[in-house]
Amino acid sequence: MRNSSRGAVDPFIVMDVMEAARQAEEAGRHIIHMEVGQPGTPAPAFARQALQNAMSDNPLGYTVALGLPALRQRIARLYGDWYDVDLDPARVVVTPGSSGGFILAFSALFDAGDRIALGAPGYPSYRQIMKSLDLIPLEVQTRAEARYQLEPSDLKGIDYQGMMVASPANPTGTMLGKDALGALIGAAQDKGAAFLSDEIYHGIEYEHKAVTALQISDDVCVINSFSKYFSMTGWRVGWLVLPPENVRQVERLAQNMFICAPHAAQVAALAAMDAGDELEANMAVYRENRRLMIEGLPKAGFDRIAPPDGAFYVYADISHLTDDSRAFARAILDEAGVAVTPGLDFDPVRGGGTLRFSYARATADILEGLDRLERFMRAEGHIT
Amino acid sequence: MRNSSRGAVDPFIVMDVMEAARQAEEAGRHIIHMEVGQPGTPAPAFARQALQNAMSDNPLGYTVALGLPALRQRIARLYGDWYDVDLDPARVVVTPGSSGGFILAFSALFDAGDRIALGAPGYPSYRQIMKSLDLIPLEVQTRAEARYQLEPSDLKGIDYQGMMVASPANPTGTMLGKDALGALIGAAQDKGAAFLSDEIYHGIEYEHKAVTALQISDDVCVINSFSKYFSMTGWRVGWLVLPPENVRQVERLAQNMFICAPHAAQVAALAAMDAGDELEANMAVYRENRRLMIEGLPKAGFDRIAPPDGAFYVYADISHLTDDSRAFARAILDEAGVAVTPGLDFDPVRGGGTLRFSYARATADILEGLDRLERFMRAEGHIT
Repeated sequence: MRNSSRGAVDPFIVMDVMEAARQAEEAGRHIIHMEVGQPGTPAPAFARQALQNAMSDNPLGYTVALGLPALRQRIARLYGDWYDVDLDPARVVVTPGSSGGFILAFSALFDAGDRIALGAPGYPSYRQIMKSLDLIPLEVQTRAEARYQLEPSDLKGIDYQGMMVASPANPTGTMLGKDALGALIGAAQDKGAAFLSDEIYHGIEYEHKAVTALQISDDVCVINSFSKYFSMTGWRVGWLVLPPENVRQVERLAQNMFICAPHAAQVAALAAMDAGDELEANMAVYRENRRLMIEGLPKAGFDRIAPPDGAFYVYADISHLTDDSRAFARAILDEAGVAVTPGLDFDPVRGGGTLRFSYARATADILEGLDRLERFMRAEGHIT
Repeated sequence: MRNSSRGAVDPFIVMDVMEAARQAEEAGRHIIHMEVGQPGTPAPAFARQALQNAMSDNPLGYTVALGLPALRQRIARLYGDWYDVDLDPARVVVTPGSSGGFILAFSALFDAGDRIALGAPGYPSYRQIMKSLDLIPLEVQTRAEARYQLEPSDLKGIDYQGMMVASPANPTGTMLGKDALGALIGAAQDKGAAFLSDEIYHGIEYEHKAVTALQISDDVCVINSFSKYFSMTGWRVGWLVLPPENVRQVERLAQNMFICAPHAAQVAALAAMDAGDELEANMAVYRENRRLMIEGLPKAGFDRIAPPDGAFYVYADISHLTDDSRAFARAILDEAGVAVTPGLDFDPVRGGGTLRFSYARATADILEGLDRLERFMRAEGHIT
């Protein structure tokens, strides 16, 4: 059958890396995984126990489209606990992962041909989902001095109907402070553009707490997920926070496009929110891994990095070493047995000169990975 | 924030019925649920046990976008077991419910403005998802004599890029035989249009086995789900079968739009496929319920019905009693304590004169519901 043209989105380059790593492992090699964007830990034990209990006395059929009322209430309470923001649970919509949240938000807010400003580097699926929905991603090259976050001055003279930011960001781990975030929200609102804030890495932050867009304005769309801090990637459950006047439209779309987020995942997510000790233990691992990365990567010759504010990534400028990050990543995999992500997924323009290192896995793997990277860079003559 | 125009889809009217029923129950009334489109049974015990085991030794992170290889293989084997069709697992894509399958298939096959022929009455989300993706649903009024299924003659002189059918259908439960389905596939292929076959109710069939479009042609897109026969609505896992040349595009879209179907649901679904005894026990209940409905509805004055070939619905013509099925359904809820679905969800043109009765729940509920309906119709003077 004929394929559509809007469906012809780019593949994830990281998927090729993962496939090459899988083949290497199948051939008996030991690979350190610094390419993956997910925790190695399962959902908290308390969450799994809650689901086990529910499976014995609840048929787990469809939930209402907006999500389990208890989960919406608990999410609203998180905004009080984390940010001192008083949030009406009626504004919370439980979604099938942040992926489902993007589809719902983009469909509810934008018509075909609308333009949405985004900073590059950034999460590649933003632009691919937009393309598949006939929206136009306006990718703006951000400045390294702005730690690769959008600035209002980047958008002068540009017409757009939406603006989207991520803080902490993927692939850089950088955050927007309250002033910087407020300036972007103000710029979008001055234009009458919708403002979307991807807050999927909130909770995984190191020196400072992340700022939610809801601390600044109610007229924003926040996208979040249980995948990262709550360690539930494969469960596919996330949430949106919307202005009151947008909830009904999102509800109708959710009824038709998804019916509901996975019921089992909603049950587990509700319990995960009270699994503080286990989640903090995960955070202690990320914190130690981050310390090792900040110390070890420069020693291995990856010295053009900035300490990440949040998430579990380090984005390294390697443009002095190569303009083909894909081949460089491939060489690291083949020679050193470490899988890393070429920057091209995140920034088609400058990503030939960057790599993303993930430190979401066990600390022992980070130590071994750093050691392998250092030996590789020494063998290649990049360090002495 | 501004709402989009394409996102302004119609609400499900049945949701209003469900909300009214919920309020009645909250006020202490006992309600019989003949409005719901889902089994009352949970996922098979074997499936829940498999997930319980997986939760203790598998982090259940992301799967690859196409789905767990073992599940894709097992689904391919189903086509051998059920239809004697030899299917390459590479053509199977695991999706987040059939809902996710619709989004992927529509995005992969059609560009904005493309027209897709559908029969009315039909599942309302088809047209709502199409609208939200800027596609144009061409709803054709089917003939009662054709048991409300599309016929090639319905489409003479109409231009379309896609055609979609459901067999067994919702709300009618009618099926397309091999000749009728073949004629529609032929008509679509003659025009170069994509043919989509919604087979979500396969397995729930009574007098004859349902025919899959894959028995007729490989150049079709089949949509199916674990929700109905496998009793896993809330788990959100389904599948597509695609022509080989469409798999790669769907894979890239799935990577970006969904990352993967819920991992826990995929694990449970794989085990559910080997839970034959429990699934057949569910079928025995549907079979008995259907017998009771075919016997009891005419006695209650709903005599303009056809015995359903599959699914768990009876679609009744009540146009001799009312042209406002919504008010009629409301009266049944208020007076008789039985929730039923007005036909307007399924057919905006003729649905004012129809009702859908679901018999997916326990047999005791069906008996009580039929009794209440008969008393209501007698009290209203529709039967003597």
